[in-house]
Amino acid sequence: MGLKYGIIGVGAIGGFYGGRLANAGCDVHFLFHSEYKHVKEHGFQVDSVEGDFHLSDIYVYNNSFDMPKCDVVLVSLKSTQNHLLPQLLEPILHESSMVILIQNGLGLEAELALSFPQTTIVGGMAFICSSRVGLGHIQHKDYGSLNIGFYQHRNESVLTRFLEDCCCAGLTVTVADDLYSARWKKLVWNIPYNGLTVVLNATTEQIMRNSFSRQLVKELMEEVRAAALANGATIEESFILDMLNMTDEMRPYSPSMKLDWDNHRPLEIRSIYLNPIEEAKKIGCPMKKVEALSQILLSLSKNAELI
Amino acid sequence: MGLKYGIIGVGAIGGFYGGRLANAGCDVHFLFHSEYKHVKEHGFQVDSVEGDFHLSDIYVYNNSFDMPKCDVVLVSLKSTQNHLLPQLLEPILHESSMVILIQNGLGLEAELALSFPQTTIVGGMAFICSSRVGLGHIQHKDYGSLNIGFYQHRNESVLTRFLEDCCCAGLTVTVADDLYSARWKKLVWNIPYNGLTVVLNATTEQIMRNSFSRQLVKELMEEVRAAALANGATIEESFILDMLNMTDEMRPYSPSMKLDWDNHRPLEIRSIYLNPIEEAKKIGCPMKKVEALSQILLSLSKNAELI
Repeated sequence: MGLKYGIIGVGAIGGFYGGRLANAGCDVHFLFHSEYKHVKEHGFQVDSVEGDFHLSDIYVYNNSFDMPKCDVVLVSLKSTQNHLLPQLLEPILHESSMVILIQNGLGLEAELALSFPQTTIVGGMAFICSSRVGLGHIQHKDYGSLNIGFYQHRNESVLTRFLEDCCCAGLTVTVADDLYSARWKKLVWNIPYNGLTVVLNATTEQIMRNSFSRQLVKELMEEVRAAALANGATIEESFILDMLNMTDEMRPYSPSMKLDWDNHRPLEIRSIYLNPIEEAKKIGCPMKKVEALSQILLSLSKNAELI
Repeated sequence: MGLKYGIIGVGAIGGFYGGRLANAGCDVHFLFHSEYKHVKEHGFQVDSVEGDFHLSDIYVYNNSFDMPKCDVVLVSLKSTQNHLLPQLLEPILHESSMVILIQNGLGLEAELALSFPQTTIVGGMAFICSSRVGLGHIQHKDYGSLNIGFYQHRNESVLTRFLEDCCCAGLTVTVADDLYSARWKKLVWNIPYNGLTVVLNATTEQIMRNSFSRQLVKELMEEVRAAALANGATIEESFILDMLNMTDEMRPYSPSMKLDWDNHRPLEIRSIYLNPIEEAKKIGCPMKKVEALSQILLSLSKNAELI
């Protein structure tokens, strides 16, 4: 019998990975919130550089109590919603379930582990340009690989079967030996670009073209790398140049925080900024410019709430 | 015979101090640029909390070659225009002229001294809420005191006569023993509020009401004070709290950089940010959060130039 999948947070990320697994014939159960009724009636549409597809006959729910127990749960909620996870996950986990948090930032697995100390928890980082373009409709523009790593309780057999399913679905999934380093490496990119695209109201391409913001990006990356190393993570020195080059070659891009900002959604400041800042401070390697950027984001965000 | 005054840069600041001196009967010569024709025909209007007045019969010029030699020159150009000063001042200075730079930031007197090593150079800091509201028309809303200090070649006799004239004109002018400390003290206020009102698109009052930006203001002030102390300036610890309290009590205010930004004028980033940042770095006491703020301002400003 195949793995049973649960998708919590069916946006641009969960919709893509869950949709591809469902499209490949896997047993996938999608938890929707506001889009439930629409998807139940009209199905789910994925426009993708790797081929469009429509899912008309899928399992959709508006309540996790109605879902079956799942072997693998992909969590791709905004991390600002993670306080809901204990309640959402409780009904669908069995004793050997594997939860994959495909989210940005640091400290989310640790937080979840407090509620589910016996559960296999995996961190996941999506390298993908994908966005929601309408009700039950997402657009996948570029990339698509998923990098995962165990946080607590390795479960090799479920992992192997998950990787096989992904392979069948044409998904590229790599397994990191060291989730902590992988999380920090993702932050090397996420910290400068997520915040600066909001504060400067610019795309990655505009930021890279402006010599001042380009220099700030580099310095922010250096602060993140220094804090990561101080915390025992491994990031090669060349990684910063690699990230700058990669961004130069990307199409003009708005990271998730910019999309959240433009759509008046809460910003993932805690997981992308405050948790890493806290870890850096604790080890005596403060990221001062990152702090300033996060304080500006918090100020803007608070303003947004007041307005 | 009374002192002959020259006013270079007749905006909200030069117009106020020069206007008050002229209104009190002093011999004041105003250099205008774009407003020359209007003021020549219609005079100059000052709306002020201390009493409105109109100057219809004043000496106005559109070229400093036509001006007489002046005993006291008030320079209140935007510091972004200071490259013009050697050429503008040359025709109107005699050997005992005193030039007062009523401008924001650090390093401007030193720069001017390179061109005029024999001239008495004084730094001036205006504590005033004043703005241009139309052609030849300024509005003075609050405060108004001027704090000055010698930078090079003390000239006590001209200073005394200047202070007497100011007294007659109802202007409060204080003389700082230590211009360098006074400049840094002004930066304690200018560095956080000038930049943050631009980046956050907010007034001082909105910034103080938001707990995140309020905290950032305080930390920026602490960085500036630490750098000032490292450079040998004197600023009491309590000064930061004084500045925060003063700003709490001020009416909602947009500092000059915010007005420049809103009116698409160049920002005084060099004198308010880059010069102090350079001095702080040199002494081994970098102001990291100030740097981040200035880099964001430079990025925005560069964008503005490109657009």
